[in-house]
Amino acid sequence: MIKNNLLIRALKKEKTERPPVWIMRQAGRYLPEFMRIKKKYDFFTRCQTPELATEITMLPINEIKPDAAIIFSDILVVLQAMGLNVEMSELIGPVIKNPLRNEKDINNLTVNDIDDRLNYVFRAIKLTKNELNNELPLIGFAGSPWTLLCYAIEGKGSKNFNYTKQFCMKNSNLAKKILNKITKATIKYLKTKIAYGVDVIKIFDSWGGILSNEDYKIYSLPYIDEIVKSLHSSIPVIVFAKGCWHSLSELSKIEVSALGIDWTCNPKFARKITNNQLTLQGNFDPNKLFQPRHKIKTDVKKMISEFGKDNYIVNLGHGILPNTPVENVKEFINTVKDI
Amino acid sequence: MIKNNLLIRALKKEKTERPPVWIMRQAGRYLPEFMRIKKKYDFFTRCQTPELATEITMLPINEIKPDAAIIFSDILVVLQAMGLNVEMSELIGPVIKNPLRNEKDINNLTVNDIDDRLNYVFRAIKLTKNELNNELPLIGFAGSPWTLLCYAIEGKGSKNFNYTKQFCMKNSNLAKKILNKITKATIKYLKTKIAYGVDVIKIFDSWGGILSNEDYKIYSLPYIDEIVKSLHSSIPVIVFAKGCWHSLSELSKIEVSALGIDWTCNPKFARKITNNQLTLQGNFDPNKLFQPRHKIKTDVKKMISEFGKDNYIVNLGHGILPNTPVENVKEFINTVKDI
Repeated sequence: MIKNNLLIRALKKEKTERPPVWIMRQAGRYLPEFMRIKKKYDFFTRCQTPELATEITMLPINEIKPDAAIIFSDILVVLQAMGLNVEMSELIGPVIKNPLRNEKDINNLTVNDIDDRLNYVFRAIKLTKNELNNELPLIGFAGSPWTLLCYAIEGKGSKNFNYTKQFCMKNSNLAKKILNKITKATIKYLKTKIAYGVDVIKIFDSWGGILSNEDYKIYSLPYIDEIVKSLHSSIPVIVFAKGCWHSLSELSKIEVSALGIDWTCNPKFARKITNNQLTLQGNFDPNKLFQPRHKIKTDVKKMISEFGKDNYIVNLGHGILPNTPVENVKEFINTVKDI
Repeated sequence: MIKNNLLIRALKKEKTERPPVWIMRQAGRYLPEFMRIKKKYDFFTRCQTPELATEITMLPINEIKPDAAIIFSDILVVLQAMGLNVEMSELIGPVIKNPLRNEKDINNLTVNDIDDRLNYVFRAIKLTKNELNNELPLIGFAGSPWTLLCYAIEGKGSKNFNYTKQFCMKNSNLAKKILNKITKATIKYLKTKIAYGVDVIKIFDSWGGILSNEDYKIYSLPYIDEIVKSLHSSIPVIVFAKGCWHSLSELSKIEVSALGIDWTCNPKFARKITNNQLTLQGNFDPNKLFQPRHKIKTDVKKMISEFGKDNYIVNLGHGILPNTPVENVKEFINTVKDI
């Protein structure tokens, strides 16, 4: 059994003495030690070397002491394993040299041997579980099929993914074919992650927010639903659909254990739209970690009192930002622990 | 009197035989003639030469025949007139060479002679009013103080304007000083626009959506409110706060004539959150103009039936995109006219 089981209990809607706390991208670019590793190894070397991924995963555990670890990786490794040539550019972020353009490209996407190609993730999970020594739960994650499709078609990050949306408007059936393939690959990937010992699954729908509710129900929700169903409630699943306030009601009705909430959605709205039934996670604006520390403390307390301390996981409303002062992050975590 | 008074009547909440229709960025990069002008003259030459601005403003009037004209300009001309060095880069969009960094920069912002520096806009309005010959109403616009502050501090476009938000978190009083100065300049600017004959004012809060409701009420809403109040209901004001679903309720309570709605907000939610009281404008996803034409027709009809044909202005949920087929834009407009 895992000693610190606050997160697992919150996800099962059990009462906890205080809400668990962890931070999206907690192994990220605000940690000096991470920056040292980043200088030595490029992005995919860090992801694909299990010893490095484990070392990076453990950095925040020792430094800021959250209630969960999340395996260091990237949502795009699935597309890479499916045959897309993903590169990470320091300046412009992810770039895919062979984005999907037509049916032939889509037919060429590999699903079958995905587990072999992602073996490095599973080995990192095994190593990290050893390091964690049952002290903390380990979260494994994947991108939602819609979010991965955005990168697969656009070929890079974008503000609105207009090219992708236009592709979908013109070739709805091709888009669905891609989504089905990504869904299949993701299910395999997550099942193997679970077999290797992750305790919680998190699905990131980073780009669902560019869709209307109507289009969300066509292009994103059904595929997340399929993934969640396929896991048969074997372990808890958190879905974080950034900007998807418009579809939180529908998301709360699939078999998820918790929904991540961003800061544009206040706690009262989030509780109401999810029918007061679900565990919620979030939603501190990462920029608020740049405030003076006494203000961070006040704001965190206010957030917890608004969400309520039960059925709640304290987190940011998006990934932590580069240059966030480590002492402020500790203030954030310790304020929760002092409750 | 203006012959086509559909827009004005809809803004006064009078019954209309059909909703008026116009398109954000209707003089934009989907029009072949605009592209020819764009090749010859750079961005600010187009804005600052009244004859060119008038010619560009009139292009869509003759080509797609909307129910209103909107003066060709840019929200950033106000920052330029206040002393910031704004350049428009073809690749990366607006760039400000001297972004605001400290109190001295803020003190240096000019408010007093803003009308002299923006004289070219007023001359363009005069010329365009002549060209329009009372056939159609003319819309004049400005950016919201928050949105202009985003550019003034960040120095360029951004996905999340994190640098700006961090500036506000650390220097809330300085941020308010900037917002007050921009508000003063904008009020002068809009009053002179009205004196020169624009029939409707539109305020674009393009970046309000990155704020929480709580921060929106600190950094954006009060300044929009101040601007709207200062115009004393002399002409109708439309506020389009993109992504600001979280603050539509508050926005509906200031003295606006209409609120613009984006596509993430469905008509039912938009009507309900604004208490069924206000004229609403929107909210067709610009990417949906890339659909087959029969689908555009179906979707436009559905949108109108969902918003209801009264107290409603048909528009997109954001600016029209480059490469949108002109025939599809005509289908959009004509579907509304055929109702």
